Amino acid sequence: MATHCSIRKTESGINSDICGQPYSVSVLKEGYCTAEDDGAFRADGTITLITGPNTILVDTGGPWDRDFLVAKLKEKGLTPDSVDIVVGTHGHSDHVGNLGLFPEAKIIVGSDISVRDKYLPNQLAEGQPYTIDDFVSIIFTPGHMGRDVSVLVKGTSEGSVLVAGDLFERCHDEDSWKELSENPQIQEANRQMALQMADVIIPGHGPLFRVQRE
Amino acid sequence: MATHCSIRKTESGINSDICGQPYSVSVLKEGYCTAEDDGAFRADGTITLITGPNTILVDTGGPWDRDFLVAKLKEKGLTPDSVDIVVGTHGHSDHVGNLGLFPEAKIIVGSDISVRDKYLPNQLAEGQPYTIDDFVSIIFTPGHMGRDVSVLVKGTSEGSVLVAGDLFERCHDEDSWKELSENPQIQEANRQMALQMADVIIPGHGPLFRVQRE
Repeated sequence: MATHCSIRKTESGINSDICGQPYSVSVLKEGYCTAEDDGAFRADGTITLITGPNTILVDTGGPWDRDFLVAKLKEKGLTPDSVDIVVGTHGHSDHVGNLGLFPEAKIIVGSDISVRDKYLPNQLAEGQPYTIDDFVSIIFTPGHMGRDVSVLVKGTSEGSVLVAGDLFERCHDEDSWKELSENPQIQEANRQMALQMADVIIPGHGPLFRVQRE
Repeated sequence: MATHCSIRKTESGINSDICGQPYSVSVLKEGYCTAEDDGAFRADGTITLITGPNTILVDTGGPWDRDFLVAKLKEKGLTPDSVDIVVGTHGHSDHVGNLGLFPEAKIIVGSDISVRDKYLPNQLAEGQPYTIDDFVSIIFTPGHMGRDVSVLVKGTSEGSVLVAGDLFERCHDEDSWKELSENPQIQEANRQMALQMADVIIPGHGPLFRVQRE
């Protein structure tokens, strides 16, 4: 357990645009989740863009983000057709609300990988990463749902960045993530793996944060 | 177990447009799943429209179905804005590919119910149906994934119709559904419940079928 104790998570000091070679990572929308007085929640999932040899969008926000997402891509000089790969870290509506903007992209939702209606064989659900290239890979990180994935980007100015969906709700989510989890035991194991692997984590419902090893 | 033995499933004799009062049910796209030689699968989810006091779309197909879906709605005299409620039976890409066409609808994906970014309290995950009105309700039917739902429509010319997502792959799916299931034991229990409850079942990847009790 000593390795766990030597890891701290901290929100400070990282811009939401992380440069890198060959890949840069930009948070297009920072997710949130806040309770309302009537028992409802206001929630949306983080939307992240990875640019480099491939253009990769990780999570697409809720259906109400459609126009926002198109406008944000345009700010980056992109159209939906410019996106090569769209990843839905898991199949909740605030993460997969806008897959339909990308009918020709390679679509990865959880452990399912498709190009249009052709679903490609892969070993994600057996725990084998799906490699995009030497710098980007899809990692199997279930628990929040049954087949969640995260995206690992190596070689940025902040080191390795993990776009983690709801594996982490936010930096300091120890009070809340378990009640949102379909399998807390498996999720906890994957959270620890993520903290070993990443220098920066982009969570599903809060600002990105740094992983510090001491 | 005697009740199980007295139930037969049969594909014959039902049109994909089922009239009813006050609700009618139309299969806009019949789902499929076929293996390819290279280990891939061609697959798409069934898309179903329920019309009456509320206009309800159950599953939205894959992202590549966007233009098809808009055209099919138009054939029915509808635009995406006419749809009041969109249900994604579960969060796989061939079922939730086009949520973004419906930013103002009530969105139900699995047990999550939202209007834009407001997620409404409900008891679906505790097994409590979510009632739309006297004739339509959302039923918790997990197993294929962890939080799947089905839509029950009462009072059609064929009796009670259950739009079941991948609770059933197709009528005769006994050789294949378990390998696609996250929890076959729970799914089997919900399949039996569905067969007790429905006269017609619309499955996720094949033609609708009749449930016959003898």
